[in-house]
Amino acid sequence: METPFDRARLDRLMEEAGIDLVLATTKHCAQYLLGGYKFFFFAEMDAIGLSRYMPAVGYPRGRPELAFYIGNPMEVWQQEHEPPWTPQVRNSAWTTEAVAEEAARFISAAGLERGTIAVEMPFLPADSFARLGRLLAAASIVDAVPLLQELRAVKRPDELALIRDASDAIVASMLSTIAQAGPGVTTARLEEILRLEEIRRGLAFDYLLVAAGPSLNRAPSAQTWDRGASLSLDSGGNKRGYIGDLARMAVMGRPSDQMIELLQEVDAVQMAARRPVRAGALGGEIYESAERELGRLDDRACMVFEAHGMGLVSHEAPHLTGSGNVPYPGTHALRPLESGMVLSLETTMRHPQVGYVKLEDTVVVTDTGCEGYGDSARGWNVAGG
Amino acid sequence: METPFDRARLDRLMEEAGIDLVLATTKHCAQYLLGGYKFFFFAEMDAIGLSRYMPAVGYPRGRPELAFYIGNPMEVWQQEHEPPWTPQVRNSAWTTEAVAEEAARFISAAGLERGTIAVEMPFLPADSFARLGRLLAAASIVDAVPLLQELRAVKRPDELALIRDASDAIVASMLSTIAQAGPGVTTARLEEILRLEEIRRGLAFDYLLVAAGPSLNRAPSAQTWDRGASLSLDSGGNKRGYIGDLARMAVMGRPSDQMIELLQEVDAVQMAARRPVRAGALGGEIYESAERELGRLDDRACMVFEAHGMGLVSHEAPHLTGSGNVPYPGTHALRPLESGMVLSLETTMRHPQVGYVKLEDTVVVTDTGCEGYGDSARGWNVAGG
Repeated sequence: METPFDRARLDRLMEEAGIDLVLATTKHCAQYLLGGYKFFFFAEMDAIGLSRYMPAVGYPRGRPELAFYIGNPMEVWQQEHEPPWTPQVRNSAWTTEAVAEEAARFISAAGLERGTIAVEMPFLPADSFARLGRLLAAASIVDAVPLLQELRAVKRPDELALIRDASDAIVASMLSTIAQAGPGVTTARLEEILRLEEIRRGLAFDYLLVAAGPSLNRAPSAQTWDRGASLSLDSGGNKRGYIGDLARMAVMGRPSDQMIELLQEVDAVQMAARRPVRAGALGGEIYESAERELGRLDDRACMVFEAHGMGLVSHEAPHLTGSGNVPYPGTHALRPLESGMVLSLETTMRHPQVGYVKLEDTVVVTDTGCEGYGDSARGWNVAGG
Repeated sequence: METPFDRARLDRLMEEAGIDLVLATTKHCAQYLLGGYKFFFFAEMDAIGLSRYMPAVGYPRGRPELAFYIGNPMEVWQQEHEPPWTPQVRNSAWTTEAVAEEAARFISAAGLERGTIAVEMPFLPADSFARLGRLLAAASIVDAVPLLQELRAVKRPDELALIRDASDAIVASMLSTIAQAGPGVTTARLEEILRLEEIRRGLAFDYLLVAAGPSLNRAPSAQTWDRGASLSLDSGGNKRGYIGDLARMAVMGRPSDQMIELLQEVDAVQMAARRPVRAGALGGEIYESAERELGRLDDRACMVFEAHGMGLVSHEAPHLTGSGNVPYPGTHALRPLESGMVLSLETTMRHPQVGYVKLEDTVVVTDTGCEGYGDSARGWNVAGG
C-alpha cells in the first residue's frame, strides 16, 4: 500500500523504539503523514468553543490498511477535492476529548489496546491524554516527537523545493526591505515591510529578529536604524509549512573597514562549518570545523556558532549538539549525515561597537557535499543610497 | 494593584468556582492577562527543538502581588520595551516541562501547593500537565477554560475597537475581492485575493469559507464562479488576535428575483435576531426571536440560525445555545446579556438551486440595544460589470 511518507523508515523506527502505533495530533505532523493535506479552516488558529481543533493520524506499525484520520465535520468539503490516503476517515470531532474517543476506538479495533502508543507529549492536550489513558488503560503511552522528527529528517525532493523557495523568498524580501529603508527608519517599520514582502512572495511570515547596531536588542521596536549603523535581519517564513530561516547584514551608507573585517570573520566560520558536510560525514564534524575556525579569530570571545536541522519545525532533527540556544541532546553528533537532510548554520557575533553581526545559511546535504539555499547577499547590503 | 483585566470580576469568578490560582498557558489567554503582550518570535508558530514554546501567566486569587509570568529567554528583548505587569517574571523556559517546573515553584512559594489550580485542559500539553501533577501532588487541577471565557465575555473599549476594525476590514476586503473577480474565477483564487486584501488592511488572515452556487462545498478549490451564479464569502481575520468574522453575498452579473427573495429571507432572520439584543435581555431571547421569524418563511426547511460570542476565540462566551454547528452547553441562554458582549449572528440557507445564501453579522450589546460592526454590503454585491 502506497503512503506519502517513507513507510519502511517509519516501520523500522517504530520497531527500534518498540512502538505499535503512532498517533500524531499536531498540524505539522498530521500534514506530513497525510502527504500535504492540512484543513484550511483551522490552518491559522485552533481554539473554538470550549475546546479546540485537533487533527489526528493513526498509523499502526506495518499495517497501513488500518491507518486512520480523525478530522472535524467541516473537513468533508476539502476532502472531496483531496481525499486522505488513510483507509479509515472519521470527520466527527469538535473537541480534543472527542478525538481521543475516536482514536481509542480505532486503536482497540486494531487490537492494540494493550500496545505501546506514541503521542506527541509536548502537544497532546491534557484532557485528550487523560481520556485516551482511561479508554486504553492497558496501553503504554510514550512520546512520539523524537521518532517523528527522525522520520522527517531526510527530505523528499518536493519538500526540498519548498524549503528552497522559502529561503530564496526570504533573502529577496530582505533585499527589497533594505532598498526601501532610509536613515531613521524604525526596526518595527522594517518588520512591517519585510512581512508584506514575504507574503507577496507566497510565504507565511513567521518572525523578524532585528538589531540596529550597536544595540543588541533583537525585538522590533521604535529603535531607529541610523546612518552608518549596521543592521542584522534574521527572519523565518514558511511555504506550506516548510520553513526558510536566514540572517543577512545591511548598513545604512557604506560599511566601515571594521565592519567588513567582522563580517569576514563570521563568514569564515560559516564556510568552515560547510566544509565537512556531505552524506556519511558525522554530524559533529560541522561543529568541530566551525570551532577550529573560531579559535583562529580575533573576535572569537564575542562569537557563537550553532547548527540545527530544519523543516516543518524550527530546530528539528538532525540535532547536532547539546549546546547552543535551544537545548536538546546532540543525538546526531556521532551519526552520519544523510543526503536530503537540511541544516541551518548560524554564526553570531555580538560586537560592543558594531552590534549584531550574523549570518545564517541553509545548506542541504548531498552525496558529494552540500548545496546552499537562498545563498546570496551574504556581504554588506547597502541602504540609503 | 493595577491589572490590565477586570480583577474584581476574575476574583469573583475564581471564588465562585473554588479556584485558588489560574495558570493560563495559551497564547491568547496569556495575551489577555498580560494586557496585550505577546512574544513576537513565537506569535505564529510554537514547535521548536523536541518541545514547544508555551507562555504561562499565574494569578492567585486576590493576590496580584504574587502573579507571575514564565517566558522564553529571548523575551527579554521585547520586555525591555514592554515589561509585563506581573511582579514576578522568569524568562527561562525552552520546553513545556520547564514551564511546569517554574510554575510549580511559584505556586508552592505562594503557599498553594494544596490549592485548586485551574489550567486550560484542552491546551496544556500532557507532559507539562504530568510534571505539574507530580510536583504539586496535593493540589487539585481543574479546567480554566470556562472561567477565562467568562472573564473575557465583556469587552473593554480597546478590545471593541480592534473587533470593529477587523470587521470593517473584512467587509472592505470582500468588496475589493468581488470587484477584482471576473466570470470563471476559481474559489481558490478568490481566497488568494481576499487573503492579501485582509493583510493589506492590517489583519492576520484566518480563513475563507467560499461557495459558488449551486455547489454547497465551502472549501477553496478549482471550482469556478460563473456568470449568473451566487457566491457566499465567509471570512475570519484578526487584528492583534481580535477576530472579525462576517459573511456576505455576491453574484456574477445581476441577481435573479429568486436570489433577491432568498437573501431577504436570510436578512429577515438576522434582523429578528438583533431585535431583542440589549443589556439585561436573556441570551435565549435571540434564538427565540430568530426561530419565530424562521417559522414564518417559505424556505425555512433549508435554513439554520446560529449565534455565538466572539473575541480572541471563535465561538467564545456568551454561549447562547447547545445546538448549532459547534456543540457546547448554552450556559448564557438563561442569563442576561451585558453591555460590551460581542455576538456573531449567522443565518445560513442551503438552497438546492442557488446554493449557499448566508449572512453573518457582528453586533455588540449596548445598554439600549446593539451596534453592528462591519455592518454594510449586506445585499447582493455585483461582480463582473
